[in-house]
Amino acid sequence: MHVLVVGAAGMIGRKLLDRIAAQPNVLGQPVKKLSLVDVVEPVAPAVLAGIAQCAQVDLAEPGAAETLITTRPDIIFHLAAVVSGEAEADFDKGYRVNLDGTRALFDAIRQEGLKAPYVPRVVFASSVAVFGAPFPEQIDDEFFTTPLTSYGTQKAIAELLLSDYSRRGIFDGIGIRLPTICIRPGTPNKAASGFFSNILREPLVGKEAVLPVDENVRHWFASPRSAIGFFVHAATLDLSLVGPRRNLMMPGLSALVGEQLAALERVAGPKATALIRREPDPAIQKIVAGWPADFVAKRAQALGFTAETSFDDIIRIHIEDELDGKIGG
Amino acid sequence: MHVLVVGAAGMIGRKLLDRIAAQPNVLGQPVKKLSLVDVVEPVAPAVLAGIAQCAQVDLAEPGAAETLITTRPDIIFHLAAVVSGEAEADFDKGYRVNLDGTRALFDAIRQEGLKAPYVPRVVFASSVAVFGAPFPEQIDDEFFTTPLTSYGTQKAIAELLLSDYSRRGIFDGIGIRLPTICIRPGTPNKAASGFFSNILREPLVGKEAVLPVDENVRHWFASPRSAIGFFVHAATLDLSLVGPRRNLMMPGLSALVGEQLAALERVAGPKATALIRREPDPAIQKIVAGWPADFVAKRAQALGFTAETSFDDIIRIHIEDELDGKIGG
Repeated sequence: MHVLVVGAAGMIGRKLLDRIAAQPNVLGQPVKKLSLVDVVEPVAPAVLAGIAQCAQVDLAEPGAAETLITTRPDIIFHLAAVVSGEAEADFDKGYRVNLDGTRALFDAIRQEGLKAPYVPRVVFASSVAVFGAPFPEQIDDEFFTTPLTSYGTQKAIAELLLSDYSRRGIFDGIGIRLPTICIRPGTPNKAASGFFSNILREPLVGKEAVLPVDENVRHWFASPRSAIGFFVHAATLDLSLVGPRRNLMMPGLSALVGEQLAALERVAGPKATALIRREPDPAIQKIVAGWPADFVAKRAQALGFTAETSFDDIIRIHIEDELDGKIGG
Repeated sequence: MHVLVVGAAGMIGRKLLDRIAAQPNVLGQPVKKLSLVDVVEPVAPAVLAGIAQCAQVDLAEPGAAETLITTRPDIIFHLAAVVSGEAEADFDKGYRVNLDGTRALFDAIRQEGLKAPYVPRVVFASSVAVFGAPFPEQIDDEFFTTPLTSYGTQKAIAELLLSDYSRRGIFDGIGIRLPTICIRPGTPNKAASGFFSNILREPLVGKEAVLPVDENVRHWFASPRSAIGFFVHAATLDLSLVGPRRNLMMPGLSALVGEQLAALERVAGPKATALIRREPDPAIQKIVAGWPADFVAKRAQALGFTAETSFDDIIRIHIEDELDGKIGG
């Protein structure tokens, strides 16, 4: 089986490759060929290096998607995106990458299929950003998509294209609306959502972290391990079970910041929570207030997608996957 | 005031021009200049010929939208579209006109605004086709858009762009989701929805009409006069009242085919209903079963949009506007 990962240099892309490296049959059949592309050249895990072709590709460049798709991959993970803040700051770049790039990929599949039958699986990374406030207390599978950012708009448009191209039999697509990934590995970044991970990840290695919002802020989470589980399940699921509504909110855990901190204290003790520095930031508070905080992901759960049910588990997964099982500092 | 009508040769475009001709201040200020474009060259009503510039324009042609927008119209009615059946049959044409053409128009406004401040009003004709079955019994303002046609997909994408461009202050846009227009003037056509108008329009002039579905089929209607009322109101409404959710389902009348026929008999007598020929057509029955039949258009009603509340009124309006007040045959 030939697998193409677009956005293979990003956090989800790399973790997906690690999963394939660890479980070669995780996508149902052995992966015999991997095409890995991103705007910076991706690196394959050592064990996959022999079957991987890595390239720096910008999908929105004329011809780039066509060239990629002439190799006729069986499964295409489309994870590439200009992130929320950047798509808001740079109108042209956001629309070019998130909309034009995605459409170029989808149209390249169509053109390839016009040459000879070709209907690959397409797994697309979407986002809760397709929703815009005000929200009901819990958002269900039929809530409408009225994004309040250009990023959310571009994701919602890509979702519509994915459904229409799937309905027409051009490819067999599924859109995965990810919860906020927590604990995000790496170093603190300036994303407005960064603190949700920072306040756990940093104290677990003995470092201070800034909390810019109140403890009663609620948000919607899944671990990186669950995120990879979503993509793997989406790649192997019988999509006739999904029907024409191809974009699914993934299950997750709705939790208060206070519940995050209580779990941190249970897992790592009060010396961990003592490292939280409360620095209220009205700008971040305002952004976060516009985000959805709770979902009932009934359809995805019925289709077998699963996520954590406690923050203790989310923290333990981080300790296992990122800290070799050790709480440090 | 300078008004641009894109799609000025269509039924709604022509009726909108007739309204402006009849009520020169209907858009709040006198219309001093009219730009009328369509894929076939439009014709201005005689009384407006002195202020109208008519041109054959394809928005999706490179540079066409830019040229149009350098004249900086104050109000832009975007009514142009490849219709549902054609967009389904011709993938490329549908996406080219309904998506690329619309985006070219929106982007031309952005480019013009980058030269010097320019924020026109944009009134966009959308459709109930943004919704896809299955539906609740009544569809409310927060029901999600999961279209089951490429046309509906293209309209839903245009709606998302309209909201995002409006949110960014590129233009001040509003999307008008039209009910099925009834009684549509003209001659019977092959649109699957055509019979809803045919069964009233034809008997009113003494002609037979074919009814391909059962009398218990329910659908959602507004008269052409109401449709023009929607566009005029949308062009003059204070859109700060609308907020960021810029696409509104218009009010309409939910009625059974049997209720249409009962109204026809009340207005035009049993000799009119005697002209209905029942010829069940399973293909049309199947298409119609996938269409939404009833809405609660609370937001639009609260904003002052109005439509008919009985089919007797819809028929009387047709007799007034199309038949010079006379029932013939």
